[in-house]
Amino acid sequence: MSKLYVRNFSISLDGYGAGPDQSVQDPLGVNGENLHRWFFPTRTFRAMLGKQDGKTGIDEDFAKRGFENIGAWILGRNMFGPVRGPWPDETWKGWWGDNPPYHVPVFVLTHHARPPVEMEGGTTFHFVTDGIEEALRRAREAAKGKDVLVGGGVATVRQYLRARLVDEMHLAMSPMLLGKGESLFHDLDLPALGYAFTEWVSTPLASHITVTKQA
Amino acid sequence: MSKLYVRNFSISLDGYGAGPDQSVQDPLGVNGENLHRWFFPTRTFRAMLGKQDGKTGIDEDFAKRGFENIGAWILGRNMFGPVRGPWPDETWKGWWGDNPPYHVPVFVLTHHARPPVEMEGGTTFHFVTDGIEEALRRAREAAKGKDVLVGGGVATVRQYLRARLVDEMHLAMSPMLLGKGESLFHDLDLPALGYAFTEWVSTPLASHITVTKQA
Repeated sequence: MSKLYVRNFSISLDGYGAGPDQSVQDPLGVNGENLHRWFFPTRTFRAMLGKQDGKTGIDEDFAKRGFENIGAWILGRNMFGPVRGPWPDETWKGWWGDNPPYHVPVFVLTHHARPPVEMEGGTTFHFVTDGIEEALRRAREAAKGKDVLVGGGVATVRQYLRARLVDEMHLAMSPMLLGKGESLFHDLDLPALGYAFTEWVSTPLASHITVTKQA
Repeated sequence: MSKLYVRNFSISLDGYGAGPDQSVQDPLGVNGENLHRWFFPTRTFRAMLGKQDGKTGIDEDFAKRGFENIGAWILGRNMFGPVRGPWPDETWKGWWGDNPPYHVPVFVLTHHARPPVEMEGGTTFHFVTDGIEEALRRAREAAKGKDVLVGGGVATVRQYLRARLVDEMHLAMSPMLLGKGESLFHDLDLPALGYAFTEWVSTPLASHITVTKQA
């Protein structure tokens, strides 16, 4: 069966996966972009920008692995955009412009129904109002045997972990403090949920941590 | 003026400085000793056991630095022992046997007065009932110009950080998950308190993180 992954998920030393006060100006919250400082120089990210340069090495290895064999994504509402409550209209189509970096079906968790939005480059946003398990079922179906990635944000990742639906999670811990925001670990007992720490590799820009669900 | 330090303070990936359920069998809580796996092989720790061996390198450099120029320690009550409430008698003298590894005056924060306890090797435990600032004042006086170290536990470190009394903190993040216990970071906004991340060095056994109070 296809796996459910969390990958390339950046957190601060103090465990925050996004900064406070998300807005159109600060999609990842204030100072949140700095969480991804390890990712921006990689060949994988540079290729998303249409560039041929970019670094290889450990950070790149993780960055690349994060997108391999992914047939569908699941995103929380707040990762899709800053709009809260019912959709006022159909104008918001994500942070990523006309050609989002997914290129596969993306399932957005929301309490407010909305027709699918087809973007350029193979990305279609589907809006799922009946919970995380249904979103996973639909994403698995759409992935056609490939794996499914939970892209975030923190609240969504925590929900899937609590439900023990995530098979493996790769965190990139960035050497920075956020002080507040959305905490990944607060009141989330991963060992009690059956998750074990399985890998740990550090580079000058991040500590890569892999956590795996035990059989 | 002498500095107030936190050093060699081990935390898990999920930010816990001790495991749950501290007891005489588990002074650092269940599974908490594993937080210090980076410290045990060091030359500094081996010397505490009277051994001449031990590893050198980055872990050792931090371990050693943690004890340099320290004229007094401050410990929370729970780090001193598992006894809660009023002292039933004078029999509990810490976890460390007749010759504790401090060799300087140690100020123990407690709500319950008790006469000082003089141990072998230069350690004297003083019990301070009038708060963290008074404990620091007395420790500074006893340190005679040397620095003062807050040894722990988590609650004590957090109190001194919140009061902006810590000048520098060195954390050793161990590649393990505890899942619950005493969280160092929860609801503690270090940037807002004026602390900045200043150093980050990783070894196979720990990520060493230094956080410094800004002027």
